[in-house]
Amino acid sequence: MASRREGRGHLVVFEGPEGAGKSTQLVALSARLSAAGYDTLFTREPGGTPAGEAIRRVVLDPTLRVDPLPEFLLYSAARAQHVADVIAPALAAGRDVVCDRFTAASVAYQGYGRGLDLGFVAELNARVTGGLEADLTVLLDIDPVAGLARASGRAAHDRLEAAGLAFHRRVRSGFIAQAEADGGRRWVRIDADAAETAVTEAVWRAVSPLLAPGEVGR
Amino acid sequence: MASRREGRGHLVVFEGPEGAGKSTQLVALSARLSAAGYDTLFTREPGGTPAGEAIRRVVLDPTLRVDPLPEFLLYSAARAQHVADVIAPALAAGRDVVCDRFTAASVAYQGYGRGLDLGFVAELNARVTGGLEADLTVLLDIDPVAGLARASGRAAHDRLEAAGLAFHRRVRSGFIAQAEADGGRRWVRIDADAAETAVTEAVWRAVSPLLAPGEVGR
Repeated sequence: MASRREGRGHLVVFEGPEGAGKSTQLVALSARLSAAGYDTLFTREPGGTPAGEAIRRVVLDPTLRVDPLPEFLLYSAARAQHVADVIAPALAAGRDVVCDRFTAASVAYQGYGRGLDLGFVAELNARVTGGLEADLTVLLDIDPVAGLARASGRAAHDRLEAAGLAFHRRVRSGFIAQAEADGGRRWVRIDADAAETAVTEAVWRAVSPLLAPGEVGR
Repeated sequence: MASRREGRGHLVVFEGPEGAGKSTQLVALSARLSAAGYDTLFTREPGGTPAGEAIRRVVLDPTLRVDPLPEFLLYSAARAQHVADVIAPALAAGRDVVCDRFTAASVAYQGYGRGLDLGFVAELNARVTGGLEADLTVLLDIDPVAGLARASGRAAHDRLEAAGLAFHRRVRSGFIAQAEADGGRRWVRIDADAAETAVTEAVWRAVSPLLAPGEVGR
């Protein structure tokens, strides 16, 4: 097992379309890391701070009309506070951070999905993070129809109008485009339509070499 | 009295440092316009839409820590929705709009006051408004010490630490700089330390020629 590095911790981000099983996999990873004595901080976006959670309630409130641009600005506001108050200080203190969604989600959802200018999304992402990027992004990849069927527990086609499905297909293509542009350096794409335990193993193989054990290993 | 123009309405924005009497003057203007039969839409930022009002509650909540950059993004998110849902449709329908704060407030407060990059503030302002600018910005100008004393009802120096006063001085300088850069074309600077009725008259002289009467004049 790797000994704890000197210096800053690593940032691992989980991304994926709806129904990829991200929450399930994060719980499994957290449990396994805790059992093995790793002191890893788990956090999420939007949220992670009191202001971020308040912003989350606004942006996810289905009764409020929020257009793509203000939606992106709300996610970005939450992200700026999250990086400043939680992620950057933890990394600076040498602690590893696992974050449920980060900048890549804005590229996929607001850029590819909603059609915001990709250059603008990249610029604001860089500004609100102060240039901080994930050391590893785990893409739990699944076809939108399979993912939405899994998420809703029944055939996605029954539930979704064509526009909704087209949106989720653009989102997935946005994640895949980022993974391919990275070329396997800092992204790993895992087939999330596989059996849950197989996905859990693939996640562990991808993530655990990057993380340092906690007090035990110091 | 001016007859109602063809085409889009005019956007008039009120700005000024704390304690300039902006709310009082807006109430007086609204009452006088209503009495004279003008159909002018009065609105405010942050706010003006259900999402905007929800964002307002976040950004003005003193228990939440919000840094300058996310603060600006929250104002911008509210502004984008406000322009899209309220201001632009009203102007397009030929209705005049009077707005309590707009883009110039972000330049003064987040740019000059909090130190955000002025170029970035200008770029995002232009993006969230789709390039829409006020036809007239009324700056109710007052020295921060006089304004804060008026706002708090006692000597501002007693209440404010030096940093707070310095912040409000930077904000005022940010408003004045914008008015001076405009050169009197679309900004009017009114001495808000004058008697209230004198300020009300100065506001009326500046604003009323730009606004069109309502149904009566159509």
